[in-house]
Amino acid sequence: MAEIKEECGVFGIYDLDGNDVTSSIYYGLTSLQHRGQEACGLAVSDTKGPIGNVKFHKDLGLVSEVLREDTLHKMSGDIGIGHVRYSTTGASVAENAQPLVLSYVKGSLALAHNGNLVNTGTLKWELIQSGAVFHTTTDSEVIAFHVARERVHTTCVEEAVLNTARKLQGAYGLVIMSPRKLIGVRDPYGLKPLCLGKRDNAYVLASESCALTSVGAEFIRDIEPGEMITISRKGVKSDMTLADTVKKRAHCVFEYIYFARLDSTMDGVKVYDARIRGGKSLAKSYPVEADLVTGVPESGLPAAKGFSEESGIPFGFAFYKNSYIGRTFIKPTQKERESSVHLKLSVLDAVVKGKRIVLVDDSIVRGTTIANLIRMLKEAGALEVHVRISSPPFLHPCYFGTDVPSNDQLIAAQHSTEEICKMIGADSLGYMEIDYLEGMAGGLPICKACFDGKYPMVIPDENNLQNDFEIHKI
Amino acid sequence: MAEIKEECGVFGIYDLDGNDVTSSIYYGLTSLQHRGQEACGLAVSDTKGPIGNVKFHKDLGLVSEVLREDTLHKMSGDIGIGHVRYSTTGASVAENAQPLVLSYVKGSLALAHNGNLVNTGTLKWELIQSGAVFHTTTDSEVIAFHVARERVHTTCVEEAVLNTARKLQGAYGLVIMSPRKLIGVRDPYGLKPLCLGKRDNAYVLASESCALTSVGAEFIRDIEPGEMITISRKGVKSDMTLADTVKKRAHCVFEYIYFARLDSTMDGVKVYDARIRGGKSLAKSYPVEADLVTGVPESGLPAAKGFSEESGIPFGFAFYKNSYIGRTFIKPTQKERESSVHLKLSVLDAVVKGKRIVLVDDSIVRGTTIANLIRMLKEAGALEVHVRISSPPFLHPCYFGTDVPSNDQLIAAQHSTEEICKMIGADSLGYMEIDYLEGMAGGLPICKACFDGKYPMVIPDENNLQNDFEIHKI
Amino acid sequence: MAEIKEECGVFGIYDLDGNDVTSSIYYGLTSLQHRGQEACGLAVSDTKGPIGNVKFHKDLGLVSEVLREDTLHKMSGDIGIGHVRYSTTGASVAENAQPLVLSYVKGSLALAHNGNLVNTGTLKWELIQSGAVFHTTTDSEVIAFHVARERVHTTCVEEAVLNTARKLQGAYGLVIMSPRKLIGVRDPYGLKPLCLGKRDNAYVLASESCALTSVGAEFIRDIEPGEMITISRKGVKSDMTLADTVKKRAHCVFEYIYFARLDSTMDGVKVYDARIRGGKSLAKSYPVEADLVTGVPESGLPAAKGFSEESGIPFGFAFYKNSYIGRTFIKPTQKERESSVHLKLSVLDAVVKGKRIVLVDDSIVRGTTIANLIRMLKEAGALEVHVRISSPPFLHPCYFGTDVPSNDQLIAAQHSTEEICKMIGADSLGYMEIDYLEGMAGGLPICKACFDGKYPMVIPDENNLQNDFEIHKI
Amino acid sequence: MAEIKEECGVFGIYDLDGNDVTSSIYYGLTSLQHRGQEACGLAVSDTKGPIGNVKFHKDLGLVSEVLREDTLHKMSGDIGIGHVRYSTTGASVAENAQPLVLSYVKGSLALAHNGNLVNTGTLKWELIQSGAVFHTTTDSEVIAFHVARERVHTTCVEEAVLNTARKLQGAYGLVIMSPRKLIGVRDPYGLKPLCLGKRDNAYVLASESCALTSVGAEFIRDIEPGEMITISRKGVKSDMTLADTVKKRAHCVFEYIYFARLDSTMDGVKVYDARIRGGKSLAKSYPVEADLVTGVPESGLPAAKGFSEESGIPFGFAFYKNSYIGRTFIKPTQKERESSVHLKLSVLDAVVKGKRIVLVDDSIVRGTTIANLIRMLKEAGALEVHVRISSPPFLHPCYFGTDVPSNDQLIAAQHSTEEICKMIGADSLGYMEIDYLEGMAGGLPICKACFDGKYPMVIPDENNLQNDFEIHKI
Repeated sequence: MAEIKEECGVFGIYDLDGNDVTSSIYYGLTSLQHRGQEACGLAVSDTKGPIGNVKFHKDLGLVSEVLREDTLHKMSGDIGIGHVRYSTTGASVAENAQPLVLSYVKGSLALAHNGNLVNTGTLKWELIQSGAVFHTTTDSEVIAFHVARERVHTTCVEEAVLNTARKLQGAYGLVIMSPRKLIGVRDPYGLKPLCLGKRDNAYVLASESCALTSVGAEFIRDIEPGEMITISRKGVKSDMTLADTVKKRAHCVFEYIYFARLDSTMDGVKVYDARIRGGKSLAKSYPVEADLVTGVPESGLPAAKGFSEESGIPFGFAFYKNSYIGRTFIKPTQKERESSVHLKLSVLDAVVKGKRIVLVDDSIVRGTTIANLIRMLKEAGALEVHVRISSPPFLHPCYFGTDVPSNDQLIAAQHSTEEICKMIGADSLGYMEIDYLEGMAGGLPICKACFDGKYPMVIPDENNLQNDFEIHKI
Repeated sequence: MAEIKEECGVFGIYDLDGNDVTSSIYYGLTSLQHRGQEACGLAVSDTKGPIGNVKFHKDLGLVSEVLREDTLHKMSGDIGIGHVRYSTTGASVAENAQPLVLSYVKGSLALAHNGNLVNTGTLKWELIQSGAVFHTTTDSEVIAFHVARERVHTTCVEEAVLNTARKLQGAYGLVIMSPRKLIGVRDPYGLKPLCLGKRDNAYVLASESCALTSVGAEFIRDIEPGEMITISRKGVKSDMTLADTVKKRAHCVFEYIYFARLDSTMDGVKVYDARIRGGKSLAKSYPVEADLVTGVPESGLPAAKGFSEESGIPFGFAFYKNSYIGRTFIKPTQKERESSVHLKLSVLDAVVKGKRIVLVDDSIVRGTTIANLIRMLKEAGALEVHVRISSPPFLHPCYFGTDVPSNDQLIAAQHSTEEICKMIGADSLGYMEIDYLEGMAGGLPICKACFDGKYPMVIPDENNLQNDFEIHKI
Repeated sequence: MAEIKEECGVFGIYDLDGNDVTSSIYYGLTSLQHRGQEACGLAVSDTKGPIGNVKFHKDLGLVSEVLREDTLHKMSGDIGIGHVRYSTTGASVAENAQPLVLSYVKGSLALAHNGNLVNTGTLKWELIQSGAVFHTTTDSEVIAFHVARERVHTTCVEEAVLNTARKLQGAYGLVIMSPRKLIGVRDPYGLKPLCLGKRDNAYVLASESCALTSVGAEFIRDIEPGEMITISRKGVKSDMTLADTVKKRAHCVFEYIYFARLDSTMDGVKVYDARIRGGKSLAKSYPVEADLVTGVPESGLPAAKGFSEESGIPFGFAFYKNSYIGRTFIKPTQKERESSVHLKLSVLDAVVKGKRIVLVDDSIVRGTTIANLIRMLKEAGALEVHVRISSPPFLHPCYFGTDVPSNDQLIAAQHSTEEICKMIGADSLGYMEIDYLEGMAGGLPICKACFDGKYPMVIPDENNLQNDFEIHKI
Repeated sequence: MAEIKEECGVFGIYDLDGNDVTSSIYYGLTSLQHRGQEACGLAVSDTKGPIGNVKFHKDLGLVSEVLREDTLHKMSGDIGIGHVRYSTTGASVAENAQPLVLSYVKGSLALAHNGNLVNTGTLKWELIQSGAVFHTTTDSEVIAFHVARERVHTTCVEEAVLNTARKLQGAYGLVIMSPRKLIGVRDPYGLKPLCLGKRDNAYVLASESCALTSVGAEFIRDIEPGEMITISRKGVKSDMTLADTVKKRAHCVFEYIYFARLDSTMDGVKVYDARIRGGKSLAKSYPVEADLVTGVPESGLPAAKGFSEESGIPFGFAFYKNSYIGRTFIKPTQKERESSVHLKLSVLDAVVKGKRIVLVDDSIVRGTTIANLIRMLKEAGALEVHVRISSPPFLHPCYFGTDVPSNDQLIAAQHSTEEICKMIGADSLGYMEIDYLEGMAGGLPICKACFDGKYPMVIPDENNLQNDFEIHKI
């Protein structure tokens, strides 16, 4: 039940046999929907047709709402990209949905971006001072504009993308479609994921391996940090120029804690295994006598399973989750809430009555949700509720695309663990040790700045640049 | 992953303190959504206002789609009823959505019905032969019409309802709203559930206890088979006249196997406990050496837990379920399906590789789903897959509102268990023993006619009555 | 620019050669749209198919909004009826749209009704007292219910319709579709129009002859007052039984003044000719020295032409009408109105400057519109504005379906002609002489009760019958 | 019934007293709707608020469809512009709707454009070669981009607009909104109209004077050809620099023949007077003995009136026009058409029977419409039909924004007047003399290139520049 939001997921596919890829993008985006539920879109082109011929559709809403059958039937092509979005920068408006599709000197350019740059202001300032105009407030339009400028004096689009990438600071997993090429780039720290798959003679790029599986593609490998992959009629070409620009690697640890789908493998580490390890470490660090280990559905269940395996305390379900509470659900008023806390999750009192319970979740943000669940468990007859959290306390902002609330909303920024334990009504509370994060992530070099404040790069101060004006389509 | 469909859920509420009940109906229907996803609606009235003043809204779609904030804001009242529908009789059209709201001799009448009558044809014939006209093809309109006819010569609405109920044969859980009274009736066999709750000075009727919980009401008791409950300014009145018209009780056993929500209690039996018992009985009847017990999400998970508890084989998750596969999901074509079976469920290969697996589900209808899952498990490295089904094989039609496919689509009607085992690619297959059904249902008298063909009442042959003409609103 | 509203238009067609009639109904309703812009609908059936198979569609909105291409493509049949509605009885809600489509003892029944009964309350009381239920608050449902009751003991549907018609008091032009017959009935006073046409082997019934023309049908004749026409495989059959039940004929004179389309012929009188005669009579009754005769677009133009022909004063256009002021037009606030009176009509100052003008319109209701126009003309330089109205002053309510505002809103009910002339800022004002109405209507016997209060039948007092409860679909 | 399409209308307003101008733009656009029915939009800003704060809305559809009350309620500001569009360049897609709203170096920029440039390709080529990206295929984006580039090195926005305008070749009436200024520019030939009005302390720019009237503004004067008007807190400033760049003036004569609204005055000439003069000239050039002069509604009526005044033959209405034939009207199939020609226009046979008729229209494009009308008149009993057209025959393409069909669709490009007369079934046919066009337009210097092929400027050949790629939002 994490309240931390991922920003985006990207998908790209080029079928060298010329088959239509539209429905594959649809299924790929459906498998990446957990990375962004605010908006989505896709763009397709036919590499055998005239240069610069692109059809696209994007809007606010879920994949199943935005990409309807009648819309998809109007699109076809052998190359295409797609995007799911949760906005962290740029207003939550339809214009800011991706992919961004533009015409430029060499035809059309489509771009989908996962992550957040930290020098967008400077990059945009440079453009706008030389007379550029902007239709959106997204990083993606700034990137596309730089690619277009570079393309004027370079010999191929991948060179223009590479020159642009040299200027980008921050986190990015990018897929770019030019008239005849599909390009993927990953930031040199490896903050954002991107992987490559293959189905027959079609190549697929995706934020997560689960999207490869969903379209029947075989996982080939992760794109390396700083690697640019170009898929064209000539096959797959890798460029590692950018990789050497930084020494460090810093994969976002939150992918393993919560963002990534349970069935994905990312940079060689199975997400399921990482979460089981996280639960086991909690059992080692904070052992407790109890009758039942349970997790907050769905995000807390794997770590709860790990806690159970390590501790030997039986795992069980304590909650029923109503899967019909959709995005349009009308929330109860404060008054109604008092009498109706059980709408989204209700307790299986047959399970919890008379038991000492270990309740595992992936994180605590404001603390109100976990407090409600503890109260519900106790009302249903639980004798004790011991809370175990499979991440350390949040204390610092993320500049790379994860939407951590501001400090005044973070309970851990205001209170000690003992205070929080009391505030939420738990009998004990244990957060994952910060030193175990690398272990959980299978030994990978990680970015854990939201926990320890140590950012992998210097964050530029761009407060003096006013580029983003409030232009709202009503 | 049951493919058997429930027909409906009903909800009614009367707040004697005069508070608005609209949002409570909304939350109640949200909690009953699992009982019907095709259409829904609600009707409210103000018992302090003029007689016969009712506002209602209903349409095809989920509660979250049909009952939007702007619609609900236009409605208010201290009495109201609601309905969620999956059509088993009557066309799948907006006009057949419930509640049915009519004007009659005493003002307005609103009615919501769960279940299926077996003598609707005769009841409608009687009306139509004396000059009645019908707007829908639902049982509900026939019932309402009889109530209206009875009301002409009776002294109160509950007497008219009772006289009507005497004529009804089949399964029903009914809630009826007259201008000043809320009435609930349950068929004398107790085929369909109905229960009573209370919140402050408001009385609530609902198909399941989970709907009481969701609105903060306390469960009082189940309505008895054949009982009529009348809630008015004078409080709650019970009438048992109808109960004595039949000797037998026959609660639908499928409520315990699959229909009812895991956190509901029905006729004194906790649904969760029943499913755990089901899983345990499978472990006793069909023991097997294995490394992991898992269930098909979500319906197979509780019985899998029971199997694990009885057998001592560890319980675990083998599948990831994509919760964004909505009603509007565009299904893959046959060709796409071959390469993309993992859209809705994908295997956690970290869990299943090299393991002997017990796979539990609630039922097998056509057999194609379970065959796919077994194949996916084996492709992910499972050594063996032993299938256990927490219900006996379907062999007979249900006349009471459950949508069992016809015999030619039921794999069990065409093949022996051994044949099915081979067809689905399982290493062994065990169905729940038919004699254990009462035990699973906590010793209740049950209707299990879909398994053994022994119906609790005679099913009239109405094939010679042509009443239902094809009138379709486009 | 009449502010008096007609209630409805009806259309029916039966193609004995079996051709699809759906698009003909669409075009027929488009030609009758001036008779009702609130709601519309159509129902079609195939007389060669199974009994009682009907498809229909209806909703609030214009024909072009409600009957879209994708909807019509789902419908086909060789018999059908349609309706356009402006509500004078029954709430302005989608459920009250017509045709009404029902199932009854002999299959399906569809009904469309133009006009207003004066004994609906009594007819409904009779039904509701014997146990009937109602879904709408329309006259049409009451009529259909009586037809269904009569059908039980009659030998054919036309006999049931005839028996029902005997009970109806008031104004009606009815078209009824039974599984194999199309029936038209007109009230014995002839208050509401109905005519018959033929195209190849298809028979057409319509409220106005312009609808026959629009589908390429030849006008055969008007249905006689009190006549029932039955179209079946055997051809056209006329029944005059009902005609003799009353002696008087009383055609609604307002059809000639304003309701009917300029190109229709009704009961032998060309509407265009009637309006020209009306204008001529004004020129005779109220001659004036002037330079230009003009009419308020569109309704005042024909009478203005007549005034010009009689007086010899040249006819011209003084106003430009913006045809893009649609139903969804956002009206200016009072403050905005002061500065922007010219949105719907603007003055052609090149025409009016320095001229003495005769301004003709069909009626004055509140007087605000004509006052605005006079002011605009004078601001544009008109020297004098002489107003001539091609109907007498409204003084009495209409019970037959015309929506005359209540007395306190009728300027003529509150003020003398002299007072009105001064209030609206005219230099002179003349209403049509009440004695000339028959002459204008070509000598027909007319109902002019809204002018003289002499109703052709006794209007029953039904105030003591409360049948219509407030049931609103939100 | 002209089949020639105008391209656009523009509107701008700045209320120096700070009042909200949103509804004024709405009313202004409603009055300009005849200039474009494909798409519309508006943008507003508050000059007292932060720099660059703009709200806008635009979409495909009529003003009454796109600008709904709930949308307008979310917008407010004291400065704003609006646009109605019929596409002649750029695809008919929502993205190409105007105003175009962008952010640039000085905040936000909104732009609305009426007319067509002839050197867009070159202007875009220049930008795209230096790395620009484009979201649309409109002239407007090219203009805005050039303004943004110029703004980098100029001291005020009007200087940037002026530098840009120097580069533009073709026809334009432009309104531009910068954060604190409203600017209007008209091309130096005066091909497209633009005028200035005032209401209290608010200044208004509009394509036609009727839009000033509709918002209660007083007409001040036409913007001169080549004039740039800047409205700011300091008042109204005029710049005539551009005017001297060309010697010629060439007002589009088709504004007087058909485009402009009957109640507008344009460059000192009343449109009504011009059309009357046109009709009179036809009567002089092609006199005929006849009983009735009539026009094709609505476009042919004023010239018919002029013909009547000159010839003395009485003017009358011969057709009824169904005003409910909307944009969504489902057109009859060829087969249906044969029997149903009367849907949009029907003949008043009472008027035409036995008469010799002069039928006036503004133009003939394909000839099919007029042929239908002549046939209808003769079927209704007209003895003779003499056609008079108030413009010369179309023979040449228009490069300035008027959508004249290609030569193979123009009947006059393929046939002599005698042949056309025979083909359409007329008894005689007369087109306006080309030499009279200046006279009709009140002596103004005009562009009549679509009639004589003499264009006021050299049209560059841009066929070798491929800038516009097919990027379609589905």
